Amino acid sequence: MATHIRAFLIDMDGVLYEGERAIPGAAEALDWLRREGLPYLFVTNTSSRPRSMLVEKLAGLGIAAEPGQILTPPVAAAGWLAAHVEGPIALFVAEGTVSDFAELPLADPQGEAPVGAVVIGDLGEGWSFARLNRAFRCLMRSNESRLVALGMTRYWKAEDGLRLDTGPFVAALEQATGRSAVVLGKPAAPFFETALSVLGVGADETCMIGDDLRGDIGGAQGAGMRALLVRTGKFQPSDLGQPIRPTAVIDSFADLPTWFAASR
Amino acid sequence: MATHIRAFLIDMDGVLYEGERAIPGAAEALDWLRREGLPYLFVTNTSSRPRSMLVEKLAGLGIAAEPGQILTPPVAAAGWLAAHVEGPIALFVAEGTVSDFAELPLADPQGEAPVGAVVIGDLGEGWSFARLNRAFRCLMRSNESRLVALGMTRYWKAEDGLRLDTGPFVAALEQATGRSAVVLGKPAAPFFETALSVLGVGADETCMIGDDLRGDIGGAQGAGMRALLVRTGKFQPSDLGQPIRPTAVIDSFADLPTWFAASR
Repeated sequence: MATHIRAFLIDMDGVLYEGERAIPGAAEALDWLRREGLPYLFVTNTSSRPRSMLVEKLAGLGIAAEPGQILTPPVAAAGWLAAHVEGPIALFVAEGTVSDFAELPLADPQGEAPVGAVVIGDLGEGWSFARLNRAFRCLMRSNESRLVALGMTRYWKAEDGLRLDTGPFVAALEQATGRSAVVLGKPAAPFFETALSVLGVGADETCMIGDDLRGDIGGAQGAGMRALLVRTGKFQPSDLGQPIRPTAVIDSFADLPTWFAASR
Repeated sequence: MATHIRAFLIDMDGVLYEGERAIPGAAEALDWLRREGLPYLFVTNTSSRPRSMLVEKLAGLGIAAEPGQILTPPVAAAGWLAAHVEGPIALFVAEGTVSDFAELPLADPQGEAPVGAVVIGDLGEGWSFARLNRAFRCLMRSNESRLVALGMTRYWKAEDGLRLDTGPFVAALEQATGRSAVVLGKPAAPFFETALSVLGVGADETCMIGDDLRGDIGGAQGAGMRALLVRTGKFQPSDLGQPIRPTAVIDSFADLPTWFAASR
C-alpha cells in the first residue's frame, strides 16, 4: 500500500491564481491544510519577482504567507552557485530578483574576463537579440563557464495569450554553445529535493499540486513524489492521455480537501 | 580504394570571404576548378539575402557566379513546402528572401487561423521577444503546423564578434512547442541531397569544403561525402580532436589545388 500523503508542494500561478484573480476556494483550501497541520511549501518557477512581492500578491488575494514558505529558482540557484562555482556571475534575470544573488561576485556582462556562470531567468519583453547574444558571448569567453537556468518552463498563460518563459531562451543558449544547463527550477530534481529538505519530509509522503504537466507533474514524479493536476491555469484538455500521467486530476485547488478525504 | 573526388560543394562565408574581405587566393582556386572541369556548387546557410545579392557580393570580390550555382535554405525550403505542406505559411525570414517564397500562400502572423508551417530564418537584430512569441503562438494555433528551419547554424563570426544564427531561435521554438523542426540547411541531409541532385553527382565522389565543423563537415559526412575543413572563418583550434573529424584540414580554400593534387 502506498505511503499516506502528509505534505504538499504547491505551485502558485495557475493553481492559486490566474493573472490577478484568485482561484475561487483556494484560500479556504489553504486554511484547511493549516487546520489539519499538513506541512506545505509554495514552489514556483517565477524568477521575475522577489519573494516579498509574491507574499504581497498572495496577501492581496486573501492568502497569508511568509517569504520562507516560498521556494523560488533564484533562491535555490544562489545557494547552488555559492557551493559549486568560482569566478564572477553574469546575471540575465529580472531586476527584482538580482538581490537574491547579493552574496555572489558579479561579472561585467560586456567585459572580456571569463565568467564563472551565466544565470538565465525570465526576462520576458526584456529579451532582445542583443541581450541574448551578450549572454552567449559571456559563455563563449571560457569553456568552463556554467550555464545556470532558473527553470525550463516553456510558456505561461498571460491575460493576452501564451507567452514564452525561461526554457526557450536557455534552450537557445544550449544549442548555441553545445553545453547543457544546470536547472534550478521545476521540473529539475535538485529543485524539488531542495523543497523537500526545507519541509523536512520524504518524497514518498509528499504530493505536488500544479497546472503544468511537464514542469509540475513530470518533475515531481521524477523526484519520487505523487502529483495532482488542476484544470486551471495553463491546463489544456490535451494534457490528458499523455505519457506523463498525474496521480489524479482535480477541477481546481479548492477540491483538495475532498480529494484528500477520498484518497485515504 | 576510395572513389576519386570529382565534384565539390563549397561553403561561402568564412571559406571564400570573411566579412567584406576575400580570402586571398580563393578566386584563383575557383578558376582552377573551372579549368579542370570539376563541377561545384556554392552551398550556404545564409538565409538573410537573396541569391542575386550573393552573386553581387561575389562579383565585388572578383568571383564570377550565377544564381543557379548557389543553393540557399530559402530556395530549398520553398520547394519542400510546396511538396509537403497545405495551408498558409508564416514567414519569419529576412526581408530579402521573402521573394523566394512568392509561389506559396502566406499566413497572417497576427491572425487566428491555423497555419500550415512557420518558417524560421536568420533575423539577427530583427529578433525580439514579441517576434519570437508571435512565431510561437502561430505554431500553437494547431498541432499540425510544421516548424521549418532555414538551417540550424549556431553562430557566425561577425566583424565585432560571434553572433547567434538561426539555430538557437529554432531550438527555442522546439523547446517551447515540444516539436522537432524540419531543417532545410546544413547540416541536415536533405539539404546536401538537394545539392548533389542539382550537380547530378553522387555523395561518394563529392567533397564539401567548409569552416564549420558541425554544419559543413559533420553534415556532409552524414550525407556520405568527404569534407575538408579550412582554417579560416569560424575555425578554432579546438575544432581539431573532436568526435567529428574532417577528411583533411587545409589552411585556406586557396590550398585546394595543392591538396587535390596530393590526394590523387
